[in-house]
Amino acid sequence: MTNQQKNDFTSWYIDTIKKADLMDYTPVRGCIAFKPDGYEIWEHIQAEMDKRFKETGHRNAYFPMLIPESFFEKEKDHIEGFSPELPWVTEAAGEKLEERLALRPTSETMIGHLYSDWIKSYRDLPVLINQWANVFRWEKKTLPFIRTSEFLWQEGHTAHVDEVEARAETMQMLNIYKEVVEELLAIPVYDGQKTPSERFAGAIDTYSIEAMMKDGKAVQAGTSHYLGTKFAQAFDIKYLTKENKHEFVHTTSWGTSTRLIGSVIMTHGDEQGLVLPPRVAPTQVVLIPVGPWKKNPEIMEKLDEIFAQLKAQGIRVRLDDSDQSPGYKFNEWELKGVPVRVELGPRDLENNQALIKARDEDEKEAVELSALVARIEEELVTMQTRLLEKARAFREKHSHIHVDSLVQLKDHIADSTESGEIPGWILAGWCGVDACEEQVKEETKFTTRNIPFNPPAEKSSCINCGNEAKHTVWFGRAY
Amino acid sequence: MTNQQKNDFTSWYIDTIKKADLMDYTPVRGCIAFKPDGYEIWEHIQAEMDKRFKETGHRNAYFPMLIPESFFEKEKDHIEGFSPELPWVTEAAGEKLEERLALRPTSETMIGHLYSDWIKSYRDLPVLINQWANVFRWEKKTLPFIRTSEFLWQEGHTAHVDEVEARAETMQMLNIYKEVVEELLAIPVYDGQKTPSERFAGAIDTYSIEAMMKDGKAVQAGTSHYLGTKFAQAFDIKYLTKENKHEFVHTTSWGTSTRLIGSVIMTHGDEQGLVLPPRVAPTQVVLIPVGPWKKNPEIMEKLDEIFAQLKAQGIRVRLDDSDQSPGYKFNEWELKGVPVRVELGPRDLENNQALIKARDEDEKEAVELSALVARIEEELVTMQTRLLEKARAFREKHSHIHVDSLVQLKDHIADSTESGEIPGWILAGWCGVDACEEQVKEETKFTTRNIPFNPPAEKSSCINCGNEAKHTVWFGRAY
Repeated sequence: MTNQQKNDFTSWYIDTIKKADLMDYTPVRGCIAFKPDGYEIWEHIQAEMDKRFKETGHRNAYFPMLIPESFFEKEKDHIEGFSPELPWVTEAAGEKLEERLALRPTSETMIGHLYSDWIKSYRDLPVLINQWANVFRWEKKTLPFIRTSEFLWQEGHTAHVDEVEARAETMQMLNIYKEVVEELLAIPVYDGQKTPSERFAGAIDTYSIEAMMKDGKAVQAGTSHYLGTKFAQAFDIKYLTKENKHEFVHTTSWGTSTRLIGSVIMTHGDEQGLVLPPRVAPTQVVLIPVGPWKKNPEIMEKLDEIFAQLKAQGIRVRLDDSDQSPGYKFNEWELKGVPVRVELGPRDLENNQALIKARDEDEKEAVELSALVARIEEELVTMQTRLLEKARAFREKHSHIHVDSLVQLKDHIADSTESGEIPGWILAGWCGVDACEEQVKEETKFTTRNIPFNPPAEKSSCINCGNEAKHTVWFGRAY
Repeated sequence: MTNQQKNDFTSWYIDTIKKADLMDYTPVRGCIAFKPDGYEIWEHIQAEMDKRFKETGHRNAYFPMLIPESFFEKEKDHIEGFSPELPWVTEAAGEKLEERLALRPTSETMIGHLYSDWIKSYRDLPVLINQWANVFRWEKKTLPFIRTSEFLWQEGHTAHVDEVEARAETMQMLNIYKEVVEELLAIPVYDGQKTPSERFAGAIDTYSIEAMMKDGKAVQAGTSHYLGTKFAQAFDIKYLTKENKHEFVHTTSWGTSTRLIGSVIMTHGDEQGLVLPPRVAPTQVVLIPVGPWKKNPEIMEKLDEIFAQLKAQGIRVRLDDSDQSPGYKFNEWELKGVPVRVELGPRDLENNQALIKARDEDEKEAVELSALVARIEEELVTMQTRLLEKARAFREKHSHIHVDSLVQLKDHIADSTESGEIPGWILAGWCGVDACEEQVKEETKFTTRNIPFNPPAEKSSCINCGNEAKHTVWFGRAY
């Protein structure tokens, strides 16, 4: 085994997701095909998110994908942020259109336009709507799942009577993101507020959850925005209060995308391939006959029985009775990241046992056949927690809280590079001035990830200018 | 109440879906917004379809929405059929594209291109993939849900070793459509084969399920295509057989769309508004306090208790304790098509009973409180079946099997118009010549719906030329 993951993380990532059949490139620039094993991870994420959105009173809707150019121009910051990345429909059914239509990069404008008609009175509020949809951002550099020209996401868009309620919604959704990403994907995240330069185009405040990948780089895994009355003013979304006054609504938006698929690969994968948390693994358990099993029909009979029992427990199980050698199969299913492998051969059967192996552990375990199903169920739960703990330990190890000046940061990066370590993230003070953030970025490529709600330490001076720190911030290289 | 449904079905339909909050128009030509109550009907359809697709071994994937112009040109019939309706992306991120990209009207071409790479050997077959996606057809005349520029659908795309297997798949999926549409949406359908002129662009054979709306017009509610090796040849999708020979795969595709939302409205709705089958109704039961309930706190206590009991049974229930009058609420929830209404007032409570009313029945029924939940559960099941039976009776009444010549058809249409009846559909013979089909269409606007698998009668002569009939066909006006 080469040490590809360490030496060239990006090529390891791309090789792995291609070999594991999660995606394929297509002839359309930056657009990938999500193959069934990749798409199913998204389906599990969708199901869990959707359940939690509905439990908190949200409903799904669907809005047009094409957005008239004039809509973007209504909110200044929004058009500035998104116009460089928009693809445009200019012709349809053989005719040139009078107005160009953008493929949506996000739907605040279309939804703002419609909400201005749907919302008349305080009785109509809050409006709590989510949309599952494809969106387009024609970016220069793409990376499968992480940054693609077309991607899938959910975007929540809510409207409220006042700031207090809208801000509570913003936080509620960020918390749901944190819970789902940690519990389902076993990816630990720092939740916090974005600095102004990293805000969503048109937001008053943007909050995010940030995850550290195995190369130390950051993925912004979900964002939640308090938009104030900016879009309400741009699209004239007013309501009549109980006191018979016209007021602007306060809106929020929040989103997570198929980049979460990429994040789960980059958080848990190893040299052998994917390592998938059981809750999102398309196949959770694979059964493999070993030894001279074809001469012993009892092996397959027993495996069929185990298969049926696991299936009855709702476990996603596969039985690999192909003609390949056991070694080939072990590699194949490890590459695909299947959480638990079960081996059964004639000698195991004699001993009334099977061997099980968790994808992320080195040792096999012999389990008595009568206890097998229960042991597998237990292991799927244990492994889910264990992956989160391992990822958390990795992140803690690479979260540096004693780098307090730009010089120290440069030294830290140089030292890391020299020792073959990843530089990870640093927690540092920031005075609040954009220029200081920019300086750090220019000289180190480290950008502010977020201002964490619960920083492991409080910093007193700005990493760049040394003046009093207004905020304690995570800095790191980002995808 | 005016008789809007009978006098102007289209305006009744549009008024009803707007008032019932299922959709809204948008400034983008032919594109609607699916509001939560409209979208939820789709979510119930999706859930049931998706379950059945998976039970039959299909998996979901996601393919790029943008399709290079050159892809369309590879299959002659396909480009001829779809090119008049395509919207095109010609610019992105400030630059003109080298090749125009179409917004997908369907994905045979993109998927054909990828399958040619994914499929190498008989071991890779069958490929059984489905996609849930938005698609675009820039049509001149649009009608919400039924025909919109952008709509949502699922498209299955499968590849097989031979014709027998591919044809079996085509039929299997048509059967699933028939079952779901009849069982979930309570819409009876005729299943059968399309005539060549009505085939999908690029198909060898197209099969459909056809539903009769309350104005007698037909909705093609789902289609399943046997594509032979046409797309395999266009995109070079070959596999190595067990005998080491290269063969083209045989492909199928099949789809159902958000037009099913429109179909359920047009099949069951009445003058008062929507009538929704319980299995797809966003709200299945509404509880309404009546009489001087505000002075009797026991009313709301009891309703809260019933609400909790229904909720615990997984029933989608609403409690309307707003300040509006009971009469207003009755109208409101009837408009929205809620299957069962429960009324509880002081006198009911004294008598230890509540009144229930099914949306499609005239009489209220008094039910003892202890039996209420069970009675509601039962009614939801009964009503589901009853709606299908009513729709079937309506369809039988308007399926005419004794119209056997073009003259008779014209008379039939004239008679119907005169008596204020809908002309419905007719079952007639057809010689198999396109020109005869065309003649009927030109003179009556009746088109062939399909050649039913189980026609109620067999016809011996062509409705137009009188020659021997090759097929017995349903003719009717279509959406």
